[in-house]
Parts: sequence; structure tokens; C-alpha cells
Amino acid sequence: MNESLRGAAVIGQSGGPTVVINQSLVGYVEAALEHDCITQVLGARHGVAGLMKGDLVDLGRESRATLERIAEVPAAALGSVRMKPGADDVARMVEAMQRFDIRYFFYIGGNDTAETAHIVEQHAADLGYELRCFHVPKTIDNDLRVTDHCPGYGSAARFVAHAFQGDDRDNRSLPGVKINVVMGRHAGWLTAASTLGRRNQDDGPHLVYLPEQVFDPAAFVTQVEEVYRRLGRCIVAVSEGIHDAAGTPFLQVYAEQAGSAVAGQADSHGNVQLSGTGALGDALANLVKGHLGGIRVRADTFGYLQRSFPADASPVDREEARRVGRDAVAAAVAGEHNSGSIALVRRESGVYQCDTFVTPLHTVAKHTKEMPAEFIAGAYAVDPAFRDYALPLTGGIEPMTDFEFHAVSVAAENA
Amino acid sequence: MNESLRGAAVIGQSGGPTVVINQSLVGYVEAALEHDCITQVLGARHGVAGLMKGDLVDLGRESRATLERIAEVPAAALGSVRMKPGADDVARMVEAMQRFDIRYFFYIGGNDTAETAHIVEQHAADLGYELRCFHVPKTIDNDLRVTDHCPGYGSAARFVAHAFQGDDRDNRSLPGVKINVVMGRHAGWLTAASTLGRRNQDDGPHLVYLPEQVFDPAAFVTQVEEVYRRLGRCIVAVSEGIHDAAGTPFLQVYAEQAGSAVAGQADSHGNVQLSGTGALGDALANLVKGHLGGIRVRADTFGYLQRSFPADASPVDREEARRVGRDAVAAAVAGEHNSGSIALVRRESGVYQCDTFVTPLHTVAKHTKEMPAEFIAGAYAVDPAFRDYALPLTGGIEPMTDFEFHAVSVAAENA
Repeated sequence: MNESLRGAAVIGQSGGPTVVINQSLVGYVEAALEHDCITQVLGARHGVAGLMKGDLVDLGRESRATLERIAEVPAAALGSVRMKPGADDVARMVEAMQRFDIRYFFYIGGNDTAETAHIVEQHAADLGYELRCFHVPKTIDNDLRVTDHCPGYGSAARFVAHAFQGDDRDNRSLPGVKINVVMGRHAGWLTAASTLGRRNQDDGPHLVYLPEQVFDPAAFVTQVEEVYRRLGRCIVAVSEGIHDAAGTPFLQVYAEQAGSAVAGQADSHGNVQLSGTGALGDALANLVKGHLGGIRVRADTFGYLQRSFPADASPVDREEARRVGRDAVAAAVAGEHNSGSIALVRRESGVYQCDTFVTPLHTVAKHTKEMPAEFIAGAYAVDPAFRDYALPLTGGIEPMTDFEFHAVSVAAENA
Repeated sequence: MNESLRGAAVIGQSGGPTVVINQSLVGYVEAALEHDCITQVLGARHGVAGLMKGDLVDLGRESRATLERIAEVPAAALGSVRMKPGADDVARMVEAMQRFDIRYFFYIGGNDTAETAHIVEQHAADLGYELRCFHVPKTIDNDLRVTDHCPGYGSAARFVAHAFQGDDRDNRSLPGVKINVVMGRHAGWLTAASTLGRRNQDDGPHLVYLPEQVFDPAAFVTQVEEVYRRLGRCIVAVSEGIHDAAGTPFLQVYAEQAGSAVAGQADSHGNVQLSGTGALGDALANLVKGHLGGIRVRADTFGYLQRSFPADASPVDREEARRVGRDAVAAAVAGEHNSGSIALVRRESGVYQCDTFVTPLHTVAKHTKEMPAEFIAGAYAVDPAFRDYALPLTGGIEPMTDFEFHAVSVAAENA
């Protein structure tokens, strides 16, 4: 290992898009251009799929103006991929890297992406090919281990918090039961963000269902009824990943009971499709209609807007996403670590601020992180501790305002 | 009719919310406070429902700071209502107005709201009770007659255009077929706004289905297939109101053919519920899956976010919504017209700018306005003339940026 390993650098983007994923990409390009030991600043189209084929582009030749505009564009500008490369695939990737004299490999993504970087590193080491491999964290699910939070989450959380604020106003305006389905199959971080715009006790969401807990349909309809009888309306936040005690997704249980109703939603492996469909929201709405009857029940599924809506990114998230891209390059060039994942750590006191550090790839790869129990506890569905944790990541959510609603004076009525 | 009719004023909000509906409300309050002939500046909770019961609040006593914050809050701050009052209801409303010495009645809403204002005016006239009745236009559907466009539409169009820009990037990143369902049961204005962020020929949406045209499911899957074969992906914008040649909603036709699959979605009148459900998007996705097979097909229904998302309002729409509220008061106090609806008219040349004028209530009430044929014509689904019309209303949509994608030099590959 040395501080002046000379060669080209390549970066790829993997997994589900975020609104700030290109900030990390641009952070990589601008930092890489600052180092003479990096001879070419390359990008792979569609992650490892492009790398295997040598489908690379020269990002070092993009103009500064293009880079700054790309940084603001949601979803992987290089194209993304969902692929766990096998041994042959990894061999082809490292072969391509050797052909282009690539000595620095960066991969932006979640836990699977960190694992891929880990496998590539091991294969290169087996061949005796010196290669530095760094994972750049990204996921709206916020489920990576070690890091305080994941770039991409703050913006998605901001969108979800704003969406629930608006929907709460909509529901006050024309009351009824409203169910909103939020992304996050295994971790409730994004669903919990639905609460970040609440200020008063009667602000929605009034009920929050996370995948960290067992979902009981009978309790659900009873809880909705209780809120509706008390407030005349009810807003529900539901994670797409709600499941029974055995871990079976609620939608799958419901589909099996309902027969043909949502059977078309299962994929070729028999898994129920949760994203890009309104089936879960509609199933829950039907449950409530069946239980309460005669009241207005609606369901929306926020869908891909949560990870791609371009006009409401968190400024904090933007800055941090840029920074982890830059810091991955700095760590790789410094050579103290041959590989690693860039993690964020929150300073303990004062105004919110994060620093970065390098954590070994295996500490981030494979397994994910659920919401801790102390964030979930509390009668109000999500504990205030969660708010303290998550609100700074969104850049702040302005509370909504109500009228004072002054009574009309009697004099006016008798006039 | 005279210029100094003295008495209280009241305003109500009706129908589906918009993001800027409270701008009109606050415009009313600030303008009404400027006139000595208006003795009280009142608001009715939940529109005519509150007015009938005398459920009024004194908006003149709200602080300036509260008013300015309320103006930015989406959805009716006074509460809304969906109700066509009968003769008895109207009698009770006018009775309440007499009790509070109300001489100015303002009603914010769409065509049904204008009709209600018209009926109230006629009843007061029959009783010989002097009352000025003004309709303040509002609807994301943009389907009111006479006016160039409707306050509320510009912000909803901005949201939809941004949503499609983000989703187009998402779909480039992880290709497949993506179907997005947009609000607007009878008019395609909002669905057409999906195109406002396009710049290049391959930018999505690639296909746009409006309720002004007959929807043919067989043609739909063929068209999706053609785009998918050409681009390797396809983004579709669909109005929730697509229907067959007889005018029957597509979802209803589909549900009848599919049997139980979506039968639960029909309301008590047998009408298929189109908003607040993902059923239409899922039905269309199933059609495409059945036709193409094996490819990634997803559907999102943008739902209530289109009318309530608080963080992306159009600055032009905000200003105009405020102005129609103010100008309704000015027209009512001036007394040149005893009643009317405030309409916008676009200046013919130069930079986009609108003026307001008063149009008789009956010209706006009852019937709605579809998109004209010249906006729909053109091989690219929506004519450029529509873009010229709609883009200024959104406050402008910044085009997305692509990389130049410079090839990697051969020297690098051979190094």
C-alpha cells in the first residue's frame, strides 16, 4: 500500500435511485480531478453490468457546468443496476479494470453494493492486482450499519414529511380516513419520517405502522375506528413492508384470503410486488371500509416519487452526499486503508454536524439496520428521540399554521 | 346597486383542495379590511355547510403574521365541503346572512361552486335582500370556462411536471415500463402537464392518454410495446378519466371483465372510484405484463399529492390566487356588478402576464371546459401550443441535464 498508487479511477452507481445520488458522483469527479496520481476519471454505465463489458465513459472531460447541473438531477446519471455478480462476472470486471489500468474502484449504493465492492477487492487481491475499493453509501431506506444515517434518506424523509403535512391539511379540509403507503420493505425509517411535520396533538399521521412491528389487521381497523370517532378523521402511515408474526407480507396474506383479487401482483418467485403498485393501500382501504362502512376511505401509495422527486431535496442531504463522494476519493488516495465504506458520525453536542470516517466493507455489507426500539417506543407511535435524530437530516420541516378561529362577536350577530 | 353597500362579508371554500386556495382566502381578508363599508370580515367553516348553521369565524381578527403563514398552507384552511345545496339549504344560508347582516358573499371553488353562488344570489334577490355574490376560481383540473386558466392549476401542473422529470430519470436509471396515473376525470389539462419538463425526443412521458380521447386498451399495449422496443423503456402518463367510446371509465370496463378483481372499488352509486386508489394503474400494468411478459412494469398513482404537496407551489400561481381573492372584493365593493366570477385573461404579447375581469356567474357555472383540439394534436401526444400555454403558469420547469458521455480514449485502454 502506498500514497501514490498511480492509475485510472472508475465509479459505478447501483440499486434504487435517490435524489442526491449524483451529488456523490460529482463529488467523486471533482475530488479525483485534484489528484495527479489518478490518470483518468472514469464512470461505468449501469454499475457492474457496464464494468464487465468495459462500457465506460470519461467523466473527467465533462464541463464544470454540466457536473454542477448533474449533481441536482435525481436518479443515477450513469445508469443503475440490480445485480449480484457471480465469480465469472467479478473476473470479467477485474479483467476490464486491468485493461484500463484502473487502480481505484468506487461503488455508490447500499449494503449489497458494499458486498460487491468487497468481493471485487478480494478477487483483485487473489490475482495480486493492486486495487483500492471504496463503497459510497446511498439509500433512501437508511438501513446501512455503522453510519449515523445514509445519504439519500434526508431528502426522501423531507418529501414524505411534506407529503403528510399536505395530506393532513387535505384531510382536515374534506375529512375521512386516508391511508398512505411509504417505501421501506424491512426498515421503518422512511415511514417514521411521516411524523416529522407534526406540531399539534391532532396533526396527522395519527397512526404509524412500521415493519419492525407485527401488523395485526384486526387491531389496525379498531385503531382507525378509535381515531375516527375521536377526531372525525384519520391519517395512517403504513410501511410497504408490514407483515404478520411469521414475517409474511400482509399483502400476501390478504391476497391468499381474497383469492383472485390481487393474485396478479405476485412475481415469478411468488413474492408479492410491493413497490410500483397500489395494491397494499387498496387492500387496507377495503379492510377499513368493511369494518366502518359508509365513510370516505382513500389510499395513496407515494411510490417512486419518494426517491426521485427533483424539487424538494434536503440541503443537508445534498451537501453530505457530495461530501461522501469526495471523501471516498481522499481516503482511497491517502492509502491508509486499501478499502472501506465512508460512514457519517454525528458530533455529540451543539448544532447538528457530521464527520466522515472509513469503516471496513464487511461492517456495512450484507446485513441491514432496523430502527432501534427507543425510536419506536412511546404512545405517539414514534418517539420524540426519532424526531431529534431525523429532523436535522431533512434540512428542517416548517410546521403548518392554523387560524386562531376567533368567534364572531354577538354584536355582529344581533346587528 | 350602490358603491357603499354597508355590511359584513363572508367567504367559504368548496370542493377539492389546491395548494394555493388559501392565497385567495388571504387576498379576500386583506382587501376586505381595507374597505370601511365592510363591517366584519367573516369566514364560513366548510363552505355552505357552515354558512347554513351560522358556523362563522371572524377572520378580520387574525394577525397579519398568521394570515401570511396561512396563505402558504395547502388545502382549505376554513374547511371545505362537497355539497349542492337544495332550496331549503339556500333559504337557511340567506337567513343566516341576514342575521349577521352579511351583504357580501364570496365562494372559492370550481364550476359547482359558481352555480351555488348563482343560486344564492337569485334567492336573495327573490327576497329583496341586497347581497353581492362573487365566485373566486379555484381548481387543479383547470376546467372552468371563460378564464384563461384556473388558480390551483399552475401549482398542480408544476408538481406533475417535476414528478415526471424525476420518474423519467428513475426509469433511465433502472429501465422498464412505468405508468403514472394523473388526476382529472373529465379534462386532460393536468395529465398534459406531464410533458412540460421534456427537452429531448427520448425524454418521458413517451405516451400520454387524455380523457378527451377514446382509450383503446389494445392500441395502448401496442404503443407501449413499440416505445419499449425502440428505447428499452417507456413512461406513460394516463388520466384517471380514460374511457371507452361510450364514455364508460376504462377501470369499470376492466373490472366487469375481470370479475371480482377490482369490484370492491365501486361506490354506492355503482361509479368506480378513481381517486385515492391505485386500481387503475395496477389494471394498466397488468395489461402490459400480459401483453409483453417478463419485463419490469410498475404503476404509480400520484393521488392527493398533486393537490396538496406543500413544497413545490408555482410562484405565478401563488400570486394570481392571491390576486383573484383581492379582486373579487374590489369588484364587489365597486358595485358595478352585483355578482360575477373573477376570470383571468392573458395579455397578447410580450412576457406572460394576466389581468382579471368579472364574468357573469352563469358563464362559469355548471359546464366545464375540456382541452381544445389544437393542444392535443401533434405526433408527440401534446402539441407545442400547449407548452406555450401552460409553462408560464408553473413558474417555469428547469430541464434536466445529461452527461456528454465522452468516450474513454484508446490510449487509456491500451495503457
